[in-house]
Amino acid sequence: MSKRIITISREFGAGGHTLGKKVAEALGIPFYDQEIIDRAVADTGFSPEFVKEAGEYASTTHSFLFNLILSHSVSTVPGGELSNYDKIYIAQARIIQELAEKSPCVIVGRCADYILRERDDCLNIFVHATDEYRKQRILEQYGEIEGKSISERLEEKDKKRILYYRHYTDRDWGDVKNYHLTINTAVIPVNKAVQWIVDAVR
Amino acid sequence: MSKRIITISREFGAGGHTLGKKVAEALGIPFYDQEIIDRAVADTGFSPEFVKEAGEYASTTHSFLFNLILSHSVSTVPGGELSNYDKIYIAQARIIQELAEKSPCVIVGRCADYILRERDDCLNIFVHATDEYRKQRILEQYGEIEGKSISERLEEKDKKRILYYRHYTDRDWGDVKNYHLTINTAVIPVNKAVQWIVDAVR
Repeated sequence: MSKRIITISREFGAGGHTLGKKVAEALGIPFYDQEIIDRAVADTGFSPEFVKEAGEYASTTHSFLFNLILSHSVSTVPGGELSNYDKIYIAQARIIQELAEKSPCVIVGRCADYILRERDDCLNIFVHATDEYRKQRILEQYGEIEGKSISERLEEKDKKRILYYRHYTDRDWGDVKNYHLTINTAVIPVNKAVQWIVDAVR
Repeated sequence: MSKRIITISREFGAGGHTLGKKVAEALGIPFYDQEIIDRAVADTGFSPEFVKEAGEYASTTHSFLFNLILSHSVSTVPGGELSNYDKIYIAQARIIQELAEKSPCVIVGRCADYILRERDDCLNIFVHATDEYRKQRILEQYGEIEGKSISERLEEKDKKRILYYRHYTDRDWGDVKNYHLTINTAVIPVNKAVQWIVDAVR
């Protein structure tokens, strides 16, 4: 099989971050989460706060243009300047490509499965769970937020990720065909999934 | 976790049948595939050939009516008689419910994941693979069919299963949220998946 890179897409609250971290530890390879990628993108000149926010919003440029830009190392598109959102997407896509080239690793979020789709050494995983399970986990991990119910937080995050993924990849979030393995952590505990994934890549 | 029933939905040629059979053998529980369910339905009076064919076609009755019929043990719908396709769907749904009630088992195909959705002791699995992998496997397992290319066979079967599932369940075939575990057998070998599933239910 020979998969060096593990990409993890995940629903908010399903435990994908924890899963990825544990897999990276077990395999002794670097773990790149959203924050690390955001920080790297911020090195290109955007404020870390803006990068963090932009990573969840979709822009108006069509995805085929991003592919054109990424594959030709240009920085403008026909018909005008890129939005800052788009610039951030492109910067992070390049960083993800560099990270994957450098060494085996685990990358969480940020459409990494799509960005690295030309490689044949990626194991693409999707982590999800029931709403009930995720709500409980979110409250345990992150606590309450005043003025916003747990259902609203879940819905808001899910919606953003669906739109972001759709926009930049032209694919449907959570379409089984995009992943080699998908796991419902409400039924398959994270620690078991960690063992399986380590088993799959070793 | 305590999952007694394992349902397997699968793309044609992806190895779901083999996977289910091996899991049942490893766990020492009955294995019900399409053929066995077809035979049971044929006991209700339809010819085995018609049952086999009907199991892949959708009818015109709306899925909520089936749920009504299944939960109320009636055999007609408001506004007229059921088509034979619909009668077969209902007969097989009842058989699947009985099988699940009787003992732990593995059930392949026939919307079993949906039919048993009210139970909390089912582990629902979806098995898929790349077209390339499936084509090669189909040729190895079933050989060539004169006058029909392997691509046509794949497309035809996929389309039928998508429509059948959509029609009777009002859900999308291959939507990750409907399954606890999905596996791409082009990347994760069937034998490895068998071990994982056995590990998950034991």
